Amino acid sequence: MKFNIFSELSYEIFSPTTFVFNIHAARSANQKIMEESLLITPALNFEEFTINNGEDRYIKLHTTNEKYFTIIYHAQVEVEYHIIDESFLLKSIPIMELDTEVLPYLFPSRHCEADKLRKLATKEFGPLVNDYIKVRAINDWIFSNIDYITGTTDSGTSAYGTLIQREGVCKDFAHLGIALCRAIDIPARYFTGYAYNLTPPDFHACFEAYLGGHWIIFDPTKLVPLNGLVKIANGKDATEAAVASFFGNTNCTYMNVQCGIAEQDFVPFITGKDTMEAISYH
Amino acid sequence: MKFNIFSELSYEIFSPTTFVFNIHAARSANQKIMEESLLITPALNFEEFTINNGEDRYIKLHTTNEKYFTIIYHAQVEVEYHIIDESFLLKSIPIMELDTEVLPYLFPSRHCEADKLRKLATKEFGPLVNDYIKVRAINDWIFSNIDYITGTTDSGTSAYGTLIQREGVCKDFAHLGIALCRAIDIPARYFTGYAYNLTPPDFHACFEAYLGGHWIIFDPTKLVPLNGLVKIANGKDATEAAVASFFGNTNCTYMNVQCGIAEQDFVPFITGKDTMEAISYH
Amino acid sequence: MKFNIFSELSYEIFSPTTFVFNIHAARSANQKIMEESLLITPALNFEEFTINNGEDRYIKLHTTNEKYFTIIYHAQVEVEYHIIDESFLLKSIPIMELDTEVLPYLFPSRHCEADKLRKLATKEFGPLVNDYIKVRAINDWIFSNIDYITGTTDSGTSAYGTLIQREGVCKDFAHLGIALCRAIDIPARYFTGYAYNLTPPDFHACFEAYLGGHWIIFDPTKLVPLNGLVKIANGKDATEAAVASFFGNTNCTYMNVQCGIAEQDFVPFITGKDTMEAISYH
Amino acid sequence: MKFNIFSELSYEIFSPTTFVFNIHAARSANQKIMEESLLITPALNFEEFTINNGEDRYIKLHTTNEKYFTIIYHAQVEVEYHIIDESFLLKSIPIMELDTEVLPYLFPSRHCEADKLRKLATKEFGPLVNDYIKVRAINDWIFSNIDYITGTTDSGTSAYGTLIQREGVCKDFAHLGIALCRAIDIPARYFTGYAYNLTPPDFHACFEAYLGGHWIIFDPTKLVPLNGLVKIANGKDATEAAVASFFGNTNCTYMNVQCGIAEQDFVPFITGKDTMEAISYH
Repeated sequence: MKFNIFSELSYEIFSPTTFVFNIHAARSANQKIMEESLLITPALNFEEFTINNGEDRYIKLHTTNEKYFTIIYHAQVEVEYHIIDESFLLKSIPIMELDTEVLPYLFPSRHCEADKLRKLATKEFGPLVNDYIKVRAINDWIFSNIDYITGTTDSGTSAYGTLIQREGVCKDFAHLGIALCRAIDIPARYFTGYAYNLTPPDFHACFEAYLGGHWIIFDPTKLVPLNGLVKIANGKDATEAAVASFFGNTNCTYMNVQCGIAEQDFVPFITGKDTMEAISYH
Repeated sequence: MKFNIFSELSYEIFSPTTFVFNIHAARSANQKIMEESLLITPALNFEEFTINNGEDRYIKLHTTNEKYFTIIYHAQVEVEYHIIDESFLLKSIPIMELDTEVLPYLFPSRHCEADKLRKLATKEFGPLVNDYIKVRAINDWIFSNIDYITGTTDSGTSAYGTLIQREGVCKDFAHLGIALCRAIDIPARYFTGYAYNLTPPDFHACFEAYLGGHWIIFDPTKLVPLNGLVKIANGKDATEAAVASFFGNTNCTYMNVQCGIAEQDFVPFITGKDTMEAISYH
Repeated sequence: MKFNIFSELSYEIFSPTTFVFNIHAARSANQKIMEESLLITPALNFEEFTINNGEDRYIKLHTTNEKYFTIIYHAQVEVEYHIIDESFLLKSIPIMELDTEVLPYLFPSRHCEADKLRKLATKEFGPLVNDYIKVRAINDWIFSNIDYITGTTDSGTSAYGTLIQREGVCKDFAHLGIALCRAIDIPARYFTGYAYNLTPPDFHACFEAYLGGHWIIFDPTKLVPLNGLVKIANGKDATEAAVASFFGNTNCTYMNVQCGIAEQDFVPFITGKDTMEAISYH
Repeated sequence: MKFNIFSELSYEIFSPTTFVFNIHAARSANQKIMEESLLITPALNFEEFTINNGEDRYIKLHTTNEKYFTIIYHAQVEVEYHIIDESFLLKSIPIMELDTEVLPYLFPSRHCEADKLRKLATKEFGPLVNDYIKVRAINDWIFSNIDYITGTTDSGTSAYGTLIQREGVCKDFAHLGIALCRAIDIPARYFTGYAYNLTPPDFHACFEAYLGGHWIIFDPTKLVPLNGLVKIANGKDATEAAVASFFGNTNCTYMNVQCGIAEQDFVPFITGKDTMEAISYH
């Protein structure tokens, strides 16, 4: 699938500030950047860097006397995803055989206190027949029990609180999904991206669980088709994959995010109750 | 029913300490003290006082040079309880018509953060048909989902934590029950007492919900028959009805609690799935 | 001193709602209501009740089909306060000799987790020479270290969080003061009232500590003269002395609070560094 | 310096369990393994892997029917450290110029909620003259205000709680140091190792702050000389550098850790009040 993605962010700046942006589409074998452009007004020097084996792309810039600035990014991206079927999904990989680079995603992180949810998660999801069914049950539980309401949480909110507060936005849904997976020893990580048909338009966050040797995508908000995502980055949680971080005194005054399809034959992939198929972007 | 109750507490004392004990059986129209004795060794002056309209009885004492002391209490108590049937249990009393003295039990307290559980409790228990069925569902949910394990919580633990940690002892079960009731606007309060047949022997804690004009007893541990309790005190939570509080540097070195029946015809009252009967001690 | 106090609250109502208001000036030997009036529009039946020995006055009302209502209260009140001097302030009253009704103010409450702050409070304030100096140090520490910023906290905020977040409003300042006092075994309680010269105008909250047999007033916001207060109520914390509580779906749309002096000779009382005088309203 | 290090860990195992151990001395240009041995009883296959550019060394093993096992490691290690003087320590490196691999250590992590401590840390340490003085003040503040007491915290404890609880062990001291540094935008990370002269003998944890282009070591416990450390690993916090992690039902029954000097000329390096010298192990 080809997507046209676009984002625009404006800031009011009250002191010299360093910004780190993570709004570029990730670049990988499965996600090709056909064309892209970045416009910063007023013009400012910036530095690019990548993490996760060069896939996830960041820029860093510093303002000195600027009072305002705007960053506009757009790109056309070709995204390939894989349908993972039952023969893989039901294959359990013992922790002993996990790749070293998957291991860190078993441990708790700032917004995903898996260590505190072990008993709860084991009671609720432990008895299910296999890891794929467990993660799907976690995903469905979050969708059914947490209300999607903007403005009820902030950047300090984490899975522990969301589990009781029962409301949040996409990042909170993702954090809770990740925490519950890790609490029953299933590796899980944060996924940010552009999402086709997301209403209201915004950056999106969901999560991936490592099942049968693949990172399988799950979106407990169920707001978008699972094959309508353009990946920006992965991380242990939002602290490692924030769209924008800053060091200084500043304020975001405007944000506009768009994700459209550059082709006509889009068939949304929705996880069905009866199918045993899932999607991996890797 | 007549009960013989007994408790013995020993302390090692490292600095002059003031103790407040709340181990006496409450005295009320429904609970008559047939005989009782209190032995403090070495002999120390103590002061008695009551709260809750003279029902709940406390003693206060101060140690100066003592290194150790032991307090032993026993009593024979006649307890009358009321079976409250459907005609009352299903009667809903609007908050507007609640007695002034019941109102405080609608608000959050130290260990019962009802304000933080409103959405969760409303989602889980709000749709049930009436207040009695809601409280019974809360009681059953706690019994089924929280593991009774000693040593996993301490005096700082509260309902919010127990809901996630999924383990605790009788006070934690009671706090969670109270918090969930208040979170859906049902008055609830803490109840401490001696309990017949409790294993291992200890002071017991459970809770009362205000339904149809009566304080109805619930015990989410389901460890004892509901008609086997001798009330010590009520309070908003354990901060208001602690068996022992102290101001100073001391350590409890021994505790023994007993509750036996002084008659032969005890028939345990257990809330059935099919019955609509409950017990009130007031 | 004579004060003219006034408050007006308007609500939009989305479902039948029961309101409990605590906006009347308290009535006591030291605080006489010279005249007062209450206007509810549209006219609604309401019920009055009192707590704390008849001093603190509440009203309760229920809306059924009303979509809006407004409550307006004003009163002229004569307030007498006592200057408590060194001879009392420095007198330490052992816990053993405290009145029974003062004892509850030694224990933690919903917003004042004194039990969790014991070590911190003991380290910071324990070594000071006497209880009055300790409370004054607590009051000054809060004033110096917590920023008064509206909108940074909500009704779920408590002392534990404020101690780290380092910002809040008058209720948060009061809760922290109370928690720190109780953490070093000094009884303390919440005080709400009307405050002369408070900017911006609002209801005010501060705290009282029990010193030398008197409830001494402290205001860690230092926003108003200590002798410019008209008491509404005391409580363990804001859960027991909220200006307005409601059970239902409603929203406060307007609030106006005023407190003026009905005489000309007001001399503000400010705690000095050198004086050993304090104020009690009891 | 040459050190002889030794560790022995025994486990009782109740279900098939995967263990990840991080007890090997790190291997780097500054830390050479002269000789080492690893003994696992009963013999079990294990897999070695490294992270952080091959420096930090882990082993992974899985038990199936074993009821007990013991792992014994010892090594002779030559450690070189660098004295970093004033000319570097006082050089401030803007965030914009930080290496990409240092950036992650500016963000909050599971046990170091720097985001929640920003105001507190800015008020307490922000006004100091330079970053080195700030970190030293943080280190001294922790040493002076937190009591080193074993058994008061557990693996779920984090900086936020330690700041109020005011007690903990080396990992808690380190987490608080890291959180406070990051809260004022100074990169900081966790450091585990063997420590010469640590009493009682145990693995040790402290932290490094990135100052003037170097990772400078700080130990807020002040229990060991700063030049007496043999590094095991770095991480964002203890979740990334735990000595032992396990997936299964097991229990550590014995632990013995030793760290001795293989030479005679050890001169302990202690940060003085007057000197501007510090130590880096990198």
